[in-house]
Amino acid sequence: MIIMKTDASETDITRVVAVVEECGLRAAVIRGEYQTVIGPVGDERLLDFDRLATMPGVKEAARVEAPYKLISREYARFFGEPGAHRTVAIRNVHIGNGEPVIIAGPCAVESREQIMRIAEGVKRAGGHILRGGVFKPRSSVHAFQGRGAQGPAGAEEALSWLKEAGDAFDMPTVTEVRGESMVELVARYVDLMHIGARNMYDQDLLADVARQGKPVLLKRHFGASIEELLSFSEYIAAEGNKDLILCERGIVPVGKGKSYTRYTLDLAAIPVIHEETYLPVLVDPSHGTGRQDLVFDMSCAATAAGADGLMIEAHYNPAEALVDGPQMVTPDELKEIVDACRAIYQLRTNVARTRRQ
Amino acid sequence: MIIMKTDASETDITRVVAVVEECGLRAAVIRGEYQTVIGPVGDERLLDFDRLATMPGVKEAARVEAPYKLISREYARFFGEPGAHRTVAIRNVHIGNGEPVIIAGPCAVESREQIMRIAEGVKRAGGHILRGGVFKPRSSVHAFQGRGAQGPAGAEEALSWLKEAGDAFDMPTVTEVRGESMVELVARYVDLMHIGARNMYDQDLLADVARQGKPVLLKRHFGASIEELLSFSEYIAAEGNKDLILCERGIVPVGKGKSYTRYTLDLAAIPVIHEETYLPVLVDPSHGTGRQDLVFDMSCAATAAGADGLMIEAHYNPAEALVDGPQMVTPDELKEIVDACRAIYQLRTNVARTRRQ
Amino acid sequence: MIIMKTDASETDITRVVAVVEECGLRAAVIRGEYQTVIGPVGDERLLDFDRLATMPGVKEAARVEAPYKLISREYARFFGEPGAHRTVAIRNVHIGNGEPVIIAGPCAVESREQIMRIAEGVKRAGGHILRGGVFKPRSSVHAFQGRGAQGPAGAEEALSWLKEAGDAFDMPTVTEVRGESMVELVARYVDLMHIGARNMYDQDLLADVARQGKPVLLKRHFGASIEELLSFSEYIAAEGNKDLILCERGIVPVGKGKSYTRYTLDLAAIPVIHEETYLPVLVDPSHGTGRQDLVFDMSCAATAAGADGLMIEAHYNPAEALVDGPQMVTPDELKEIVDACRAIYQLRTNVARTRRQ
Amino acid sequence: MIIMKTDASETDITRVVAVVEECGLRAAVIRGEYQTVIGPVGDERLLDFDRLATMPGVKEAARVEAPYKLISREYARFFGEPGAHRTVAIRNVHIGNGEPVIIAGPCAVESREQIMRIAEGVKRAGGHILRGGVFKPRSSVHAFQGRGAQGPAGAEEALSWLKEAGDAFDMPTVTEVRGESMVELVARYVDLMHIGARNMYDQDLLADVARQGKPVLLKRHFGASIEELLSFSEYIAAEGNKDLILCERGIVPVGKGKSYTRYTLDLAAIPVIHEETYLPVLVDPSHGTGRQDLVFDMSCAATAAGADGLMIEAHYNPAEALVDGPQMVTPDELKEIVDACRAIYQLRTNVARTRRQ
Repeated sequence: MIIMKTDASETDITRVVAVVEECGLRAAVIRGEYQTVIGPVGDERLLDFDRLATMPGVKEAARVEAPYKLISREYARFFGEPGAHRTVAIRNVHIGNGEPVIIAGPCAVESREQIMRIAEGVKRAGGHILRGGVFKPRSSVHAFQGRGAQGPAGAEEALSWLKEAGDAFDMPTVTEVRGESMVELVARYVDLMHIGARNMYDQDLLADVARQGKPVLLKRHFGASIEELLSFSEYIAAEGNKDLILCERGIVPVGKGKSYTRYTLDLAAIPVIHEETYLPVLVDPSHGTGRQDLVFDMSCAATAAGADGLMIEAHYNPAEALVDGPQMVTPDELKEIVDACRAIYQLRTNVARTRRQ
Repeated sequence: MIIMKTDASETDITRVVAVVEECGLRAAVIRGEYQTVIGPVGDERLLDFDRLATMPGVKEAARVEAPYKLISREYARFFGEPGAHRTVAIRNVHIGNGEPVIIAGPCAVESREQIMRIAEGVKRAGGHILRGGVFKPRSSVHAFQGRGAQGPAGAEEALSWLKEAGDAFDMPTVTEVRGESMVELVARYVDLMHIGARNMYDQDLLADVARQGKPVLLKRHFGASIEELLSFSEYIAAEGNKDLILCERGIVPVGKGKSYTRYTLDLAAIPVIHEETYLPVLVDPSHGTGRQDLVFDMSCAATAAGADGLMIEAHYNPAEALVDGPQMVTPDELKEIVDACRAIYQLRTNVARTRRQ
Repeated sequence: MIIMKTDASETDITRVVAVVEECGLRAAVIRGEYQTVIGPVGDERLLDFDRLATMPGVKEAARVEAPYKLISREYARFFGEPGAHRTVAIRNVHIGNGEPVIIAGPCAVESREQIMRIAEGVKRAGGHILRGGVFKPRSSVHAFQGRGAQGPAGAEEALSWLKEAGDAFDMPTVTEVRGESMVELVARYVDLMHIGARNMYDQDLLADVARQGKPVLLKRHFGASIEELLSFSEYIAAEGNKDLILCERGIVPVGKGKSYTRYTLDLAAIPVIHEETYLPVLVDPSHGTGRQDLVFDMSCAATAAGADGLMIEAHYNPAEALVDGPQMVTPDELKEIVDACRAIYQLRTNVARTRRQ
Repeated sequence: MIIMKTDASETDITRVVAVVEECGLRAAVIRGEYQTVIGPVGDERLLDFDRLATMPGVKEAARVEAPYKLISREYARFFGEPGAHRTVAIRNVHIGNGEPVIIAGPCAVESREQIMRIAEGVKRAGGHILRGGVFKPRSSVHAFQGRGAQGPAGAEEALSWLKEAGDAFDMPTVTEVRGESMVELVARYVDLMHIGARNMYDQDLLADVARQGKPVLLKRHFGASIEELLSFSEYIAAEGNKDLILCERGIVPVGKGKSYTRYTLDLAAIPVIHEETYLPVLVDPSHGTGRQDLVFDMSCAATAAGADGLMIEAHYNPAEALVDGPQMVTPDELKEIVDACRAIYQLRTNVARTRRQ
């Protein structure tokens, strides 16, 4: 859509039309009382809106179509996709077509014993997938960066512990990939590759990870709009990998003074992404709030809003954890969360059945 | 807490201590490896932090205590308050001690027939309190401003229709007060006085409304932190009115590009405010999302997070409404919401009983 | 502009066209490869976009025209306005057509002696208009609220001191109006009526103040976009008062962690508002940064960006001030600012002359 | 600083003190009227604040010291640094000790002829360093990604054109590094390595780039606070590379509705960073505004605020550019900017001399 200034000349209009036609589209000219608007007809991706915006007499030139298409429900049929919701399989765990899937585990893998003991707790609580950080993207260079910071050997050791613990308790595993040089190594060990919020904008990492042929979990950056999350997801789909799961983990708080939470969980993102795309959506209430005492409430809320699963930090003794202690729950608390969320999911399903009739 | 610069001199420290003592407090001096920190002992409200912050050698001077005390659970016992959660009675409706209270009705009262017909629908759907806007705070001066914009006579007429509809269906009423000159008029007609998000910072309006002796519903401004909401609530409590209900209605979206919702609902605000204060908390999913199709999901989520009630825009025919049509639900949809939220509340209560054991 | 869904039916399209025509406009239908777009032709203010947005098959319905017209340069000629930049006269001081106008004085008027002594300093430093707060909108109810908080008598006394000080040193005066009940009182004493950032959204106050027939200074709310500032300015212009001056004073900081300033000054707002409207624009570097040591640099930057003036908090002894001490400058510092800004303005004017040739 | 709850027990306090002492620090206990505060004495980096925050009776546990020390002026002397402002040499160009340094060139290197012709224009306009993008981090996967997207061969070709153009006109060169696998290649060709805003949080890339031993230009992420920018800068300094230049390029706009600029330039960041660190600071008015017509004003403003230089997108024909046309200036416009900024710098220097006397 190209909006002309109120004082645009006929020549200005003619030139804009010419550029639209040069790009292989037709141009519909609508003359309003104050302004003329020019509507391009055809594939807008061929149009150079930046160039149009600098032309004389042009007030605004904006794309009407979405910046993502491959993951979109609306465009699915143009790309031969079914457009319904997609189920992503992480070995024997399916995300997107039933009970909320629980991903849980420690922020950081610290030792073989630690991850083994936590895996046992997660399994007992009803968890489905084991998480454990090997590469920690900390804000301060002076803070603990995870076992992965000790080089490939340290990373591989921690990854093997994570895999061993997952195997021992029959749970697929997930870990965050940080740094392109580690992508292949991580792909050899885990079942689900996690791209953290801070790396959402890193197109090279996204493409690299997508090419490993494993399911990918992409977290929304804390400064990103939903549209940006979807645009960057398209980088993964563009590599042919549609086993993609999105995760809301909170955006930066607004306003002066204390917000009392580390981030602001945007739970409306769940139904919005379900409306816009066919992808499953998780929520991470641990990072989203940064507070152990809020994880239960926000897990329930996320499930009630339709989340396909939760990603929760758990530890047998949060006070001992090297990282993120204040936001970790114990296996007993995790079990309460799992039980409550299952009941809420069941209730939602029953209500949905009634509403559809 | 006064943090001195690493190069502060002994004289700088002595002077700061003297000012703290002048204000009637003692000063504890902690000498660290790099820095000295001075901790005032006593009532920090007597201290002039602004003055301290400009003194030589001072790096930072910050209040440790909360800017609100009267509504605080932590400070309650110092003010002879019980500190438990408070129930606010709006005539026969009690907010804060049981099932979520449903406030519903049209954005704007348009005619006697319209509000009467909507009241019937709200009651039938299970609503408890009838809302209806008389003064609409629109962004554009060229948009419909509500019947109240036609002067006191127009306002009084609309208020009387609202009251009549509430009485006819045995529901208390609520309307937004806009403009100090209308406060007394509004207080004569409604049972609950609503201060809108745009006016949260208007201390004079807050105090005026508080003094009417009726329960007050205060909405969080869309650019305000939770701490600011609580600080401004204190203006109402300071007038001796603690029949105060807070309402989360969304904050401004973050990031470039589309957020797909008008605002970002911050549902973690519910447990946070319950932890910090003894006040009931509502959520407005209609304004919080601006989308009819998201109201059900976000109502469920808010209830699952512990909200004491919901404020929902409803209309027998949203497409006919003069204002906010895209976010209104029909009475049938409202009934679905009420039923689902009751079930979620029941589930939460059962779980809470188990957790406490 | 109404954008239809990719699967909208012909009937959906026909219905939207009918609604557009009902409102008295024509509808241009543009059929794209994926989507149909409907462009209304005529006065868009007559269209009910909210209603259109809820119609079946509609994806988005958005106004193309600006929500403000009376203050707009682009629309000026349709309203018989010249469209050039406007000069606003505050008695003998003219804002908008020359050297940056300096408004300075204390945050709060504390006593006759204080304001008199500060007025002398402001005049000596080269200031043009004297500011002094009578009603202080503080975040905490426990903080000093200004002399105006002591009721009309206290307010009138402080206002008379301000006027006396202005007269003594031949400077017009400005003070913030807080509370509609004080509007007439304030209008009797000051030459320029200031609406603070927290009240930018208070349409009733805006209209009341506009009707006093005195020039108005409107500050941008710290959570408002530029479009919102302009939309709310239109409330003042709609009362027939175009002696309107806008003021940028900082928006809420973004991101986790410290921003080191109270707000983020958005200096690009200056050329943007000059492009969009014919109104003069001031900057308040005192509130915008909250730091005395940044006032000089940000005053220079604002002037270099084309500001028509500055609003600066000044005091002969900042450490003594009851409010905002950390952001006040002394008369000597004010003089340095005035001199530097005059030189920058001169340089800008010379450059502008060269650029135009 | 550890703040205890008002109802913390003596046992709670004793336990916190024990943990502080375990970490090798002393603990000063300050008993206030309502609360007890515990101040750790010693190197706070040894303390585990996360663990402390989860202990019973603890309300808040917060670090008082800055999360960056190596780049800090305040801590400089503890690390044997001079603490004054640092000058960074990019071959024969020095940033940080004089006239604003102008980095200019196209958003993307498109061909040998294009970059050669632009280099000539930049040199003629008075530019010092030649920029040109080889790897473009675009939001949409469907948009042009730069020559670097064609693989290492395409990247190397574009880099060699850039180098050739720089050599031909005796200007050092700078380009953005995107993707760790390209770091060494880029380091072989350019004189200054640029890490873009989207990658500010990518610690691995930061460390990799730092280790190349070349000066580094780090841009602030558009969702980052100044503290975050400084914390992540510390990742570069921690590799022993202090030839570091920071760049403000705008943060995400706040508020509903149009901001009229792509980002909000935070010019107060310039004096703030100069106060906090010894590093030079640049401003990028092209990305910061996204508008050609604002580049002049914001360049002047940045220089007036004390910027050590500017990074500006320039092209002999903006309408032809494949990327970012709307924000590019021509060589003639660049010359006007350079001349105006030199004059403003001179004026600032003269004023500074007077102020210091």
